[in-house]
Amino acid sequence: MSQRALSVSRMTGNRSTFAQWYQAVVREADMAEPSPVRGAMVIKPWGYGVWEEMQRDLDRRIKDTGHENAYFPLFIPLSFIAKEAEHVEGFAKEMAVVTHHRLKNIDGRLVPDPDAKLEEPYVVRPTSETIIGDAFSRWIKSHRDLPVLINQWANVVRWELRPRLFLRTTEFLWQEGHTAHASEKEAREETMKMLEVYRAFAEDTLALPVIAGEKPENERFPGAVETWSIEAMMQDGKALQAGTSHFLGTHFAEAQNIRFQNDAGGLEFCNTTSWGLSTRMIGGVIMTHGDDDGLRLPPAVAPRQVVIVPMLRDKPEDAAVLEFANGLAAALKAERAFDDRLRVLVDTRATKSADKRWNWVRRGAPIIVEIGPRDASSGTVTFMRREALRDGDKIKSHALPRDEFVAKVPAMLAEIQATLFKEAKARLDANIRTGVTDFAGLAEFFGAAGDDEDGGEFKGWVRAPWCKPTGAELDAIDTRLKTLKLTLRNVPRDQPANFGACIFTGKPGVEEILISRAY
Amino acid sequence: MSQRALSVSRMTGNRSTFAQWYQAVVREADMAEPSPVRGAMVIKPWGYGVWEEMQRDLDRRIKDTGHENAYFPLFIPLSFIAKEAEHVEGFAKEMAVVTHHRLKNIDGRLVPDPDAKLEEPYVVRPTSETIIGDAFSRWIKSHRDLPVLINQWANVVRWELRPRLFLRTTEFLWQEGHTAHASEKEAREETMKMLEVYRAFAEDTLALPVIAGEKPENERFPGAVETWSIEAMMQDGKALQAGTSHFLGTHFAEAQNIRFQNDAGGLEFCNTTSWGLSTRMIGGVIMTHGDDDGLRLPPAVAPRQVVIVPMLRDKPEDAAVLEFANGLAAALKAERAFDDRLRVLVDTRATKSADKRWNWVRRGAPIIVEIGPRDASSGTVTFMRREALRDGDKIKSHALPRDEFVAKVPAMLAEIQATLFKEAKARLDANIRTGVTDFAGLAEFFGAAGDDEDGGEFKGWVRAPWCKPTGAELDAIDTRLKTLKLTLRNVPRDQPANFGACIFTGKPGVEEILISRAY
Repeated sequence: MSQRALSVSRMTGNRSTFAQWYQAVVREADMAEPSPVRGAMVIKPWGYGVWEEMQRDLDRRIKDTGHENAYFPLFIPLSFIAKEAEHVEGFAKEMAVVTHHRLKNIDGRLVPDPDAKLEEPYVVRPTSETIIGDAFSRWIKSHRDLPVLINQWANVVRWELRPRLFLRTTEFLWQEGHTAHASEKEAREETMKMLEVYRAFAEDTLALPVIAGEKPENERFPGAVETWSIEAMMQDGKALQAGTSHFLGTHFAEAQNIRFQNDAGGLEFCNTTSWGLSTRMIGGVIMTHGDDDGLRLPPAVAPRQVVIVPMLRDKPEDAAVLEFANGLAAALKAERAFDDRLRVLVDTRATKSADKRWNWVRRGAPIIVEIGPRDASSGTVTFMRREALRDGDKIKSHALPRDEFVAKVPAMLAEIQATLFKEAKARLDANIRTGVTDFAGLAEFFGAAGDDEDGGEFKGWVRAPWCKPTGAELDAIDTRLKTLKLTLRNVPRDQPANFGACIFTGKPGVEEILISRAY
Repeated sequence: MSQRALSVSRMTGNRSTFAQWYQAVVREADMAEPSPVRGAMVIKPWGYGVWEEMQRDLDRRIKDTGHENAYFPLFIPLSFIAKEAEHVEGFAKEMAVVTHHRLKNIDGRLVPDPDAKLEEPYVVRPTSETIIGDAFSRWIKSHRDLPVLINQWANVVRWELRPRLFLRTTEFLWQEGHTAHASEKEAREETMKMLEVYRAFAEDTLALPVIAGEKPENERFPGAVETWSIEAMMQDGKALQAGTSHFLGTHFAEAQNIRFQNDAGGLEFCNTTSWGLSTRMIGGVIMTHGDDDGLRLPPAVAPRQVVIVPMLRDKPEDAAVLEFANGLAAALKAERAFDDRLRVLVDTRATKSADKRWNWVRRGAPIIVEIGPRDASSGTVTFMRREALRDGDKIKSHALPRDEFVAKVPAMLAEIQATLFKEAKARLDANIRTGVTDFAGLAEFFGAAGDDEDGGEFKGWVRAPWCKPTGAELDAIDTRLKTLKLTLRNVPRDQPANFGACIFTGKPGVEEILISRAY
């Protein structure tokens, strides 16, 4: 029992091992796999089950804050993109372009039919500001139509040259909120409200501690006045941007003519916002909570919170074991946790029970029960808790009388959720370094860029004062940071009263910013 | 109050009026609208809300029958489609083709970048047999891996030259099930199990009576051994195919090399199935339950089952009205119907309450409550039931003491659901004509093809014996039926013991088939 469930360990040495470990977890926990479509993944049932639980919870939060779901076309006319490109600096051009609407067999080969070339090509949505803005311009006439508070669950496509499952894929799933308001004040409040929804979702549902703050100018969504993010620290010390909320001012409204008649009868442009959170978050859950035995899932989003493995041996006592397992499952399903019925599975697949146990360990089911003939006859439940699987190298096994186990499971799941958060929070809090005062100090702390793609050992983040430079001055800093593979993450919401000198320029600091390697 | 809520009536005269009525309901009930993308629609919040309720219910039925959700790429390599085209006669070629992955500004115009042409084009999935089959060929090694029971909720694209909102759109939303089995028997059972899931969903959840049966050879899904459907009768007498379940035999497994090692160690091809149901179903709900005042929603899928309109007049008594309305909503939300909490809305939008009332009538909210100062002070609830809105031309209004109303709402919603089903079932049962014995009789019954796209008056369907011809003989019949704008729908599961002569050939009949105009 002292071997690990996973073939690759997380942290022996450097981050290139961490990258291999991540791939191993994604694969061995049955979360996702590469597909024959370059950069696009297949999300397997266990991985998709996590996404469904995330959707259910986040959807409720989005609706509780007054938003409604709707659905807009996948395709965006090229002219819409061209119009946006005129208005938006830093417009990204890596997009899938649909040019034909028919295939034809020519000389025995199936090819796009030259006679079915589209007059105007379509782009597969990389995000939907333009196509939703077009609808808003039709829907909004008067201040009485405002605010418009829309959310969409959808797939989007952004061509990725160096894809990584969940973290960076050509196609991914997300929700994108789009809202229009009569005043700048209200739109700014919306931006911050949704940032707070994301923070609460990440921390309370995914047990991911995050830092919410404003992105610096060079990291803004093209066209945004302000971009806010939540940033999470992975177990290799890198940052993962885990959700963004944009205050767009009237930029998009001007490009798309989203106007309303105000109280006085005059026409005004709306202030708009957008905000999104994607399947990338699943990568964040893996890299935050996984260990050398595989994934550890926060119970709030585990597709199965309790998995029962009956130890069947093709013997007469199998019947009693199965009956006990099914009775236990039924009793558990009547219990509740995280405001929902418990999600319980009896795994009766025709494979060895030891293989099943290790499979559920790798998949990260929070509580794994094994039922043998002796358990069935004595009415005992023997189980493992995935968040604290081992005592040293040995597996920790617990046993409780059946009814006591059933009664305790909801509290146990809450404990597991809290423990995962506490562990990650301690790591985050302990690894934000302050006191670095200049670029040389940054270079010393992070070391030269690693000799592999990911480079170097665990370093965490640096938090330092800066003078909030803009334009060319900021670009120069960004370029210099890139030589150390560093990026500016965000300016946390909570700031001290006084600031030291800017880490980059030595001028007086005006706020503190986070600096780190990142995904 | 005797005017209708809708500007167009359903049935004055002929089907072209029905088509206009349909468009008016879709528009005036805020269900969907055309988009700037040819043939693709915007599904508005009320329409999408109906889809969400449908998804929730159907998803539960799909999971209860042992299936798991997963997600596969939107793009399909052209080579996959080419391989399918070799194996499948009747392969459809109207598909969106992605040929480039970047845009470029050339001479001031944004165009697909010639340097970013894909080596192999991608097709936007019209359905996912090939890309999911590719995954199955990797996942399935042994009989112990079977059955594989997968479902996907997704958007799909099929180029439509004559689009109609919900019924025929270039992009639509659906679920597609894909399963692989060790034996033909098991795959056939799966096909029928899912047909039954669709029937139960249509009848119990959407109040749509349907006839489940097998499609004739010429209407099969390309590559299927058998295609089964549920067919619903619209209020213009036309049929709507509302869900299909395909037994694919080993055709797709052979094209995609989906094989397993059997008990004896030999390699066998799997038998596979697929089955799908889409947003088209929303069109079926509208055309079945709508009336001249707009939509009537089955309470099981109404996004809001009770809508409360407080009659506010900018006067001091508004506070008491609002308090009463909110208290009523809270009491209702504690009640349950259709195995879920009641869905209740207090409509406080800043528009006239009469406008709000008519808006909810058109949208088809099952129970509409209006609260005035007198109701608030007397503790009375005044309400309309949308399924029986009028007594002759007059609106029927009901009144109940508050607590009695709250207690009765769950039963009222069940009654409304039952009434909608009963009305539609009576129409279906009364309008399947038997006794037509030859083609001339068909021509007489349906009349010559109408002089507008939809043609003619309400006719319903014909049910007649036939000899189940195949190949060229069937094609000739199909062509002849087309001159009357008729199609073969399906062969209902329940069949008599004996059959008359074939309506087309005069040979001995072997089964009865449904013939009608259709969407």
